[in-house]
Amino acid sequence: MKELVERLYPVCRSITGDGLRRTLEIVGEHIPLTVSEVPTGTEVLDWTVPKEWNIRAAWVKDPSGRKVIDFAEHNLHIVGYSTPLHATMPLAELREHLHTLPEQPTLIPYRTSYYSETWGFCLRHDVLESLPDGDYEVFIDSTVEDGHLSYGEHVIPGELTDEVIFSCHVCHPSLANDNMASVAVAVELAKRLAVQKTRYTYRFIFAPGTVGAITWLARNFERVDRIVGGATLACAGDRGSLTYKRSRRGDAPIDRAVEHVLRESGRPHKVIDFSPYGYDERQYCSPGFNLGVGSLTRTPYAGYPEYHTSGDDPDFVTEESMADTLETLWEAVTVLERDRRYVNLSPYGEPQLGRRGLYDSLGGRSDTKQAQMAMLWVLNLSDGDHSLLDVAQRSGLPFATVADAADALRGAGLVKE
Amino acid sequence: MKELVERLYPVCRSITGDGLRRTLEIVGEHIPLTVSEVPTGTEVLDWTVPKEWNIRAAWVKDPSGRKVIDFAEHNLHIVGYSTPLHATMPLAELREHLHTLPEQPTLIPYRTSYYSETWGFCLRHDVLESLPDGDYEVFIDSTVEDGHLSYGEHVIPGELTDEVIFSCHVCHPSLANDNMASVAVAVELAKRLAVQKTRYTYRFIFAPGTVGAITWLARNFERVDRIVGGATLACAGDRGSLTYKRSRRGDAPIDRAVEHVLRESGRPHKVIDFSPYGYDERQYCSPGFNLGVGSLTRTPYAGYPEYHTSGDDPDFVTEESMADTLETLWEAVTVLERDRRYVNLSPYGEPQLGRRGLYDSLGGRSDTKQAQMAMLWVLNLSDGDHSLLDVAQRSGLPFATVADAADALRGAGLVKE
Amino acid sequence: MKELVERLYPVCRSITGDGLRRTLEIVGEHIPLTVSEVPTGTEVLDWTVPKEWNIRAAWVKDPSGRKVIDFAEHNLHIVGYSTPLHATMPLAELREHLHTLPEQPTLIPYRTSYYSETWGFCLRHDVLESLPDGDYEVFIDSTVEDGHLSYGEHVIPGELTDEVIFSCHVCHPSLANDNMASVAVAVELAKRLAVQKTRYTYRFIFAPGTVGAITWLARNFERVDRIVGGATLACAGDRGSLTYKRSRRGDAPIDRAVEHVLRESGRPHKVIDFSPYGYDERQYCSPGFNLGVGSLTRTPYAGYPEYHTSGDDPDFVTEESMADTLETLWEAVTVLERDRRYVNLSPYGEPQLGRRGLYDSLGGRSDTKQAQMAMLWVLNLSDGDHSLLDVAQRSGLPFATVADAADALRGAGLVKE
Repeated sequence: MKELVERLYPVCRSITGDGLRRTLEIVGEHIPLTVSEVPTGTEVLDWTVPKEWNIRAAWVKDPSGRKVIDFAEHNLHIVGYSTPLHATMPLAELREHLHTLPEQPTLIPYRTSYYSETWGFCLRHDVLESLPDGDYEVFIDSTVEDGHLSYGEHVIPGELTDEVIFSCHVCHPSLANDNMASVAVAVELAKRLAVQKTRYTYRFIFAPGTVGAITWLARNFERVDRIVGGATLACAGDRGSLTYKRSRRGDAPIDRAVEHVLRESGRPHKVIDFSPYGYDERQYCSPGFNLGVGSLTRTPYAGYPEYHTSGDDPDFVTEESMADTLETLWEAVTVLERDRRYVNLSPYGEPQLGRRGLYDSLGGRSDTKQAQMAMLWVLNLSDGDHSLLDVAQRSGLPFATVADAADALRGAGLVKE
Repeated sequence: MKELVERLYPVCRSITGDGLRRTLEIVGEHIPLTVSEVPTGTEVLDWTVPKEWNIRAAWVKDPSGRKVIDFAEHNLHIVGYSTPLHATMPLAELREHLHTLPEQPTLIPYRTSYYSETWGFCLRHDVLESLPDGDYEVFIDSTVEDGHLSYGEHVIPGELTDEVIFSCHVCHPSLANDNMASVAVAVELAKRLAVQKTRYTYRFIFAPGTVGAITWLARNFERVDRIVGGATLACAGDRGSLTYKRSRRGDAPIDRAVEHVLRESGRPHKVIDFSPYGYDERQYCSPGFNLGVGSLTRTPYAGYPEYHTSGDDPDFVTEESMADTLETLWEAVTVLERDRRYVNLSPYGEPQLGRRGLYDSLGGRSDTKQAQMAMLWVLNLSDGDHSLLDVAQRSGLPFATVADAADALRGAGLVKE
Repeated sequence: MKELVERLYPVCRSITGDGLRRTLEIVGEHIPLTVSEVPTGTEVLDWTVPKEWNIRAAWVKDPSGRKVIDFAEHNLHIVGYSTPLHATMPLAELREHLHTLPEQPTLIPYRTSYYSETWGFCLRHDVLESLPDGDYEVFIDSTVEDGHLSYGEHVIPGELTDEVIFSCHVCHPSLANDNMASVAVAVELAKRLAVQKTRYTYRFIFAPGTVGAITWLARNFERVDRIVGGATLACAGDRGSLTYKRSRRGDAPIDRAVEHVLRESGRPHKVIDFSPYGYDERQYCSPGFNLGVGSLTRTPYAGYPEYHTSGDDPDFVTEESMADTLETLWEAVTVLERDRRYVNLSPYGEPQLGRRGLYDSLGGRSDTKQAQMAMLWVLNLSDGDHSLLDVAQRSGLPFATVADAADALRGAGLVKE
């Protein structure tokens, strides 16, 4: 996964344009992607698909003719959607277009201006401080023109047409944790699912943030009824512990699955309530859709000093963290797949498990096996009101033990779905 | 407010009589009052309006002829509703009619006997201890006769006929915190409301405790359906922190408003559950009415040593405490007035706030303004199920910020009531 | 109670047989029992009544002819339901039929094999370790034949046919706390109830564990609708504090009654949620029946080192502990008996308690009597939604005070059931 992050990192992405296309192309080398291109001007919910932005070069030369800021050196140097320009201006005028982080003088910030036509450069604050007075030559070779917004989808069909979606924003230029680490984790999760027979259909969405998710929702309005839930994936690779942000519903299947997995695993983690800020769960959980879509991150949105700066480079993410995020997702998917609601077919008294070979014949011992306890719990709570995850939570037993017990009981004809 | 307390303090009030009338007259100098006079014998719910009690003089002379207890010196010296008497009796016989506080020997207690014909005096325990044996002359110039029970009302009409009531008991003689401080706070609150355009109609009730509230309820039986809530006001001026006692309902609008204001303010405070004891919330919250009426006090009922003694004098209350109680009520009223339930008219995805001038154009920054967060919260929760107060509580944002955001969104046509 | 435990302790009980019959006979000397005998082979819910097991003698002689294990010395030496045998075999072969507790080498474990035909002995691990190699003579004089399963019932009719059941398992051989202590407590509780006029009918069930409860349920299928609740009684005499395990419903009348009694008493105690393991609440709370039946124990199931070993002898239980268990049950029964739902007949405002002699005539005092507070609470909450136990819990007043207040109010015609 780290390799994929390193390969994707240098691409200059935005909410439209060739960097975004190149990103989808690289992802498509790992898992088949269906790429959609939506024309500028298309109305999508309350929004309109913006013009496409492409950038080839951008620099600032100081009075001595030395390039003091150069897009060729770092994608973050240019404010996203900067309009083309070639001009000379005194430092004072230029400064109004320069963005720095005075508190973090050695880091380049990430800034964009998608919906207000302007231009600007981002740079280290210490560099800004060292600039001499005088006239500066400013050059931006960009285009903001009618074009398309691109997004990619990878679908793994299941038994049911009900869908679980995982959505990654892919609009940020050179930022590793935010969000190429999540793209790498999503690719691996998709590969693992592809070799399974699954109950649900799984859809991975790689789209630019906000307007991309909005575009996808606008074009899949009829489909959303099939979505049983899912998560946005972001910040999947930093060294912090996992944070799960609940869907707006708060108790959607994904919420219960991820929380169970996190709690059972003993991992340090946090679970936080939904808020209408963060990543594209904002769109999936808008009140009209209100999908059961949460958000899994490690350190959450804006929670680390390197957030939206040049400090979020490939060294900021680790293979271990991405593997841990992947494993958590995998376990949560397993819970979603296996969670069912059974009905006890022998609900009056306990059925005699012993004669079915499901119970120890020697009585009197005080150490009953977990598998037997799980069967007793499944039998007791299989009244149509409790799912296996309910049983796991109520009993304190691991979900897998409970699901295995249910399989054994179903095999013996004692419960049915 | 302190001045009004000092003016009202010396008046000898009871549940009927001229002291009560004089009290309403003084209040009426500040805010217009409609005074009702209900004849003795009128049946009011399970009760009957009692005879009217008036007292002109009352004293006890010791064997040497010296006045050792004199109503002229302190209203609390006479047990409320004491019957007339002129007699001489030995100390032993007199003592059965003397009430003191052995644990607080320098304070005069407050005692009444409204519904059992008797007489008595209250005095300092140290004075009682110093009384010599011998014959005492006892004189009480009072009348207990058919008359009226008086109460006053001040109404501020709003857009709606739905009413918020604030009810103060005005039956206690010289006790400052209990309840002249609340009368002073109520008067100021009424003055503030009078110069506002309000949504609700506000009614201030100044009535004797228990039988007064019962009389008001009996005579307004048809009106109670219009009462959306309110509070009894008591002990509004002592130096203790605020205590809000919830209505019997527990989550009435007033409960949620006051609790939000207290929590947001960071004031030290307590919120306690309803109990059928205390002030006239006992009547408003009886199960037949079950009105959403709580009770706001500083130190609650019987919670301070000066309670129902001569220690509850004007020095016991402070302008600062009354101002703080008033401010809390004002803020709670503001919440009641502004709390609405909106519906997001653009519920699919987030509406594009930027093009409506409601959102920053420069992206990528991690410090989103509170006003913008409030708009996102209002949009996300405006599904018909959540009021603005719900939004404030869920988001942790101040109610005013949320209500301002809702106003901005309504102005932009994005939400409607 | 200790005497009864000592008398019952030496009887060799199992889930069928003469030891079980003898146990019911001894109980029947204290309280009249109706004993049912259900033939082997009878189908009971998912189970079948097993063959009857009786044992007369069982021993093992070492190569020198010395009896090293002898059932005559301790009932626990023989594995329950051991089949008859007379054979000689080397130690290695014998060992496969010997059960010990290596961690508790001086205690004999309790083992059974009801549903798998085999034989075995239980012994101290230190004795096992001392056995010399060589040939051992093994003798078991038992029968496993068609016969009957026995259980006993004692019924105390009440005003209503609605029943409260208390169920004790009586299948364990020489184990004192588990369960002869509970039998002794149940006998005393039945004696106390017999001299009362009760509202509910009380049924005490003395049956073998699991299959006995299942047999009772199968034969009383039509009756279970009448069961308002109850408890299984087990481990009633050890020195640990009380543990109440809730019924599957979690808020059945018995749950609320026992929890209130335990909390009010100030006793150290634990309340735990239902789990489908433990005693016969497993059967009563199976999802088809889902009866409001909890379980009262002192140290719970398998929670003490002496559990299911020879360490659970009469010295392990105390009269004090049994008396404390009995008292708790008695108080819980009192709550069940007195808990009613009243309706306030004077719900608008407080009724005037003073003129009915229910309230002090002297006003102004801050120390209101608990009995008066209880009346105000009963009046306030008697809206048809709250029972007296609800009132006690909400008010924090003892149940008896609340129930007495309700009686006084009913006497005054202010509330009705």
